[in-house]
Amino acid sequence: AVPAYPPPESEEEESWVWSQIKAEARRDAESEPALASYLYATVLSHPSLPRSLSFHLANKLCSSTLLSTLLYDLFLASFSANPSLRSAAVADLLAARQRDPACASFSHCLLNYKGFLAIQAHRVAHLLWLQHRGPLALALHSRVADVFAVDIHPAARVGKGILLDHATGLVIGETAVVGNNVSLLHHVTLGGTGKAVGDRHPKIGDGVLIGAGATILGNVRIGAGAKIGAGSVVLTDVPPRLVGGKEKPARHE
Amino acid sequence: AVPAYPPPESEEEESWVWSQIKAEARRDAESEPALASYLYATVLSHPSLPRSLSFHLANKLCSSTLLSTLLYDLFLASFSANPSLRSAAVADLLAARQRDPACASFSHCLLNYKGFLAIQAHRVAHLLWLQHRGPLALALHSRVADVFAVDIHPAARVGKGILLDHATGLVIGETAVVGNNVSLLHHVTLGGTGKAVGDRHPKIGDGVLIGAGATILGNVRIGAGAKIGAGSVVLTDVPPRLVGGKEKPARHE
Amino acid sequence: AVPAYPPPESEEEESWVWSQIKAEARRDAESEPALASYLYATVLSHPSLPRSLSFHLANKLCSSTLLSTLLYDLFLASFSANPSLRSAAVADLLAARQRDPACASFSHCLLNYKGFLAIQAHRVAHLLWLQHRGPLALALHSRVADVFAVDIHPAARVGKGILLDHATGLVIGETAVVGNNVSLLHHVTLGGTGKAVGDRHPKIGDGVLIGAGATILGNVRIGAGAKIGAGSVVLTDVPPRLVGGKEKPARHE
Repeated sequence: AVPAYPPPESEEEESWVWSQIKAEARRDAESEPALASYLYATVLSHPSLPRSLSFHLANKLCSSTLLSTLLYDLFLASFSANPSLRSAAVADLLAARQRDPACASFSHCLLNYKGFLAIQAHRVAHLLWLQHRGPLALALHSRVADVFAVDIHPAARVGKGILLDHATGLVIGETAVVGNNVSLLHHVTLGGTGKAVGDRHPKIGDGVLIGAGATILGNVRIGAGAKIGAGSVVLTDVPPRLVGGKEKPARHE
Repeated sequence: AVPAYPPPESEEEESWVWSQIKAEARRDAESEPALASYLYATVLSHPSLPRSLSFHLANKLCSSTLLSTLLYDLFLASFSANPSLRSAAVADLLAARQRDPACASFSHCLLNYKGFLAIQAHRVAHLLWLQHRGPLALALHSRVADVFAVDIHPAARVGKGILLDHATGLVIGETAVVGNNVSLLHHVTLGGTGKAVGDRHPKIGDGVLIGAGATILGNVRIGAGAKIGAGSVVLTDVPPRLVGGKEKPARHE
Repeated sequence: AVPAYPPPESEEEESWVWSQIKAEARRDAESEPALASYLYATVLSHPSLPRSLSFHLANKLCSSTLLSTLLYDLFLASFSANPSLRSAAVADLLAARQRDPACASFSHCLLNYKGFLAIQAHRVAHLLWLQHRGPLALALHSRVADVFAVDIHPAARVGKGILLDHATGLVIGETAVVGNNVSLLHHVTLGGTGKAVGDRHPKIGDGVLIGAGATILGNVRIGAGAKIGAGSVVLTDVPPRLVGGKEKPARHE
C-alpha cells in the first residue's frame, strides 16, 4: 500500500505532492467553472510538477522582449537536469502548508504565492550564475524584481523548505547565505552596511524566523533557530535559538 | 435644482461623482491629445462608474491565463448586484480627495491610485470568499499582490471611505478587520505574531490613521480615531483617539 | 587619442558610456545566445543611448491602454529636446557602477535596475509636470508605481548621479527635493507628516545616503553628506555630514 505521506526528498514525495495538486485543481475546476480553463492551462494539462511550474513561471515572468518560450525551455531544462531543484520546490510547498495558517492547499501555493514562485526562479538564476551565465541570471533576477517585488541576487545561496510569507519587498544581497527551513516575512532585508565590499551580507542559520520588515545588515551570523522581531535592525551576530532584535516591539507596546 | 453635493451613499452621489469624472476626463482629453484614446477607453466610452471601473480593473489585473473578459464580467456582475460595493467605491474616491493633498481629481484616483484599485478588487474577492468561491477569490488576491504589491487576504473585512496612500507593500491578514474612514499608509502590516492560529490579526477602529511602515501584529484592537506613528511596532491594544506607537519617531528626532 | 574617461556631463561622456554599453551587449550576446535577440532589441539595434533607453522604458511601462508607441515617442522627444535629461541618465549609470558593488556593468544597470529606469521615467514625468501636462505626468507616474513599485510624485525635484539601490517601495512626495549624488536604499520614504499642506516634504542635500527602510517625514532638511541609518524615523533637520537616525540600529545590536 502507498504510504499516506512518502519519505522526504524522494521522487515519491514529488509525485505525491503533484497528485495532490492535480486533485485540488480538478476539484476547483469543477466547483468554479470560471477558473476551469486557467487551471487546465496551468496545472491539469501538464504531466508533471516541473512542467506545470515551468509553464506558470514563464507566463508570469515573460515580457515583450523576453519571450515565454525561452523562459519555459530554460526552467524546464534546469528542473529536469537538477533533481535538487525539484526536491527544494517540494520542500517549499510543504513548508507553506505547515507554517502558514493561510495556506489552504498545495495548488494555492503553486499558483498564487509570489514568494514561492520567486524562490523557484531564484534557484534557476543561481544555477545560471554558478554556470558563469551571469547576464541571463541577472535578466531573470530583474524580471522577478519587477513582477514580484522580490529582489534576491542570483549569487545568494538559499536552502530548501523556505517560506517567503507575503514576500513583497524582500531583499537578499549577493553574498548572503540562507539555511534550510527558514521563514522570512515581507520587507525583510539581508543587506550590506555600505561600508564593505566582498563578503558583506548576513548568514542565516537553519530554522530561523525573521519578522516583517526586519533589516539585517553586514556579514553577521543569525544562529540556527533564532527568531528576529518584526521591524528590528540587527547589526551583530545573534546566537542560536535566541529571540533577537526584540527590543523594538517591546518598547512600542 | 440639483444640490451641489448630493446626500452620502445615495445613487445620486454615485452619479454626481461619475459626472465629475467624465467632465475631468473630457477636459484632460482636450488638453492632452496623447491621452485622448486612453481616456476614451477607460472612462469616456463607459455609461457608468461600475462599467468604467470594471474595465480598468480587468485590464490592470488580467494575464495571459486569466483573461480580461472573465475579470470584466466578474467585476461588473459583482458591482451590479451589490450597491454597497458601489457606494464603498464612491466613499473611497471622496476619502482620497478629502484626505490626500496630492489627489487632484476623482479621475486621477480612479485611474492612477493603485491603493484605490486594490481595495475595489479586494471587495470583489471578499464577496467571492463569502460565497464559498475561495479559489477564484485567491486567484484575484494573487493578481492584486503581483500587479499592485498590495496583499489583502480575501477573508479580511474592510470598511468604506478607505485611503490606501501610496499603497505599495501593504499587508492585511486573513482575520483582520478594518473600520470605516481609515487611512493606511504604504508598508503597513496588519499581521499575525506567528504564535497563534484562528482569529490572529488586528482589529482597526473607525477613523484610524496608521503611518508608513507601521507593523501591527496579533489580535489587538486599535481604538476609533487613534493615530499610529510611522515605523512603529504595535503588539497591544491602543485606546481610542490615542496617539500610539509614537515612541520610535520621538527617539529618532 | 580619445581619453580613457571623458569629461563629465559632456556629449563625449554620453557616447563613451554608450560605446561601453554596446560592447558589453555584444559580448553578452555572443556568450549567451539565449539573450541575443533580447540584447539586439533593447541595445544593439539602437543608434544611441536615448533611443535604447526610450525603447526599453516604453516596453516596460506600456499597457493595453497606454501603448508602447506613445510612450516611446514621448521618451525620445523628451530626451532629444533636453540634454540635461541625458547627462543625468549618464550620471546615474556612473553612480551605480561607482557606488553599488553588485553593479557589474553599465548595460546591467540600463537593462535590469528598476531604480535606474524609474528615475529616468520620473525625469520625463517631471518635465511634463513643469509643462503643465499634469494628467500625462500622473499617468506615467502611475505606471512606474505599478511596474517598479517606485512612487515618485512628478512634482518632486531630483538631482543627478542618483542611486536607487533595489528601489522597491521607495516613496518620494510631491514637494520633496533630492540633491545630486544621493543614494537611497529600498523602502525609503520622503513623506509628509499628514498634518501640513503645501510645502510638506523633506529636502535632501547633495551626497546624502539614506539606509533601507528609513522614513523621513515633514519639511525637514537633511544636510549635505549626512548618512541616515536603516530603519530610522527622522522628523527633524539633520546637520551636514552627521550620521543621523542611528539610534535605532544601535539599540538593536
